Amino acid sequence: MPNPMPNLRLVPIGHIMTGYCSLEECPRNIAAGLPHSYIHLEDRYAVALTGMVPGRRYDIVYWLDRGDRSSSCLMQTSHRTGEPAGVFTKCSPHRPNPIGLSRVVLHAIDGLALEVDGLDCLDGTPLLDIKPAVL
Amino acid sequence: MPNPMPNLRLVPIGHIMTGYCSLEECPRNIAAGLPHSYIHLEDRYAVALTGMVPGRRYDIVYWLDRGDRSSSCLMQTSHRTGEPAGVFTKCSPHRPNPIGLSRVVLHAIDGLALEVDGLDCLDGTPLLDIKPAVL
Repeated sequence: MPNPMPNLRLVPIGHIMTGYCSLEECPRNIAAGLPHSYIHLEDRYAVALTGMVPGRRYDIVYWLDRGDRSSSCLMQTSHRTGEPAGVFTKCSPHRPNPIGLSRVVLHAIDGLALEVDGLDCLDGTPLLDIKPAVL
Repeated sequence: MPNPMPNLRLVPIGHIMTGYCSLEECPRNIAAGLPHSYIHLEDRYAVALTGMVPGRRYDIVYWLDRGDRSSSCLMQTSHRTGEPAGVFTKCSPHRPNPIGLSRVVLHAIDGLALEVDGLDCLDGTPLLDIKPAVL
């Protein structure tokens, strides 16, 4: 593995609360009907919420801190077909850079808390970014 | 700013070739009609391409290494309306964690090179991840 370049560092800007306390509890994928999740933003980022609109879709970017980043993550097995599949065809949390990404509807904003569609990550997952969903 | 947690480090897994050598040359956003871009994957990740299919859409995740991460990035001005807008409503490269995200069609795979819809980032931008587009 190459040495990570020292400037490719992330800062958590909040946390995602899902209520799932173990990997076994996490749903395998996002699906309709999951209980809503809550994003708690650190207060220094409050101004960045300006202009967000409930009802719109946003991309939530987060850090899958329990992911396996070793080379064994590169080829995985499809749960659906049992066939081998490269990690770039999978939403698996096990990847070279364990960045999670989910497109959700924003349901409500209450101060620093955002209520969104149900996410499938662990409770307390570090939040990295929120972006407007395009395309 | 908090100290970054030491384990929130990324590794470049390839680079994106767009031909744009300065920020002034980069298109402001992705749009139909941009020349296709090319992703060059590092060879150790070749196996992770297994199962990728031209014609399908993928999310390309990359590192906006010229982004301004200071607190001044949190509130920006809309180019369209001139109104102030929080960074979470913008696709701007200037954000607390300068992760870029674009949903593109994969047009062709040739060894370690992927031809995709035109991206708007600088030539040589570090690639972080490729994911299947869902939702």
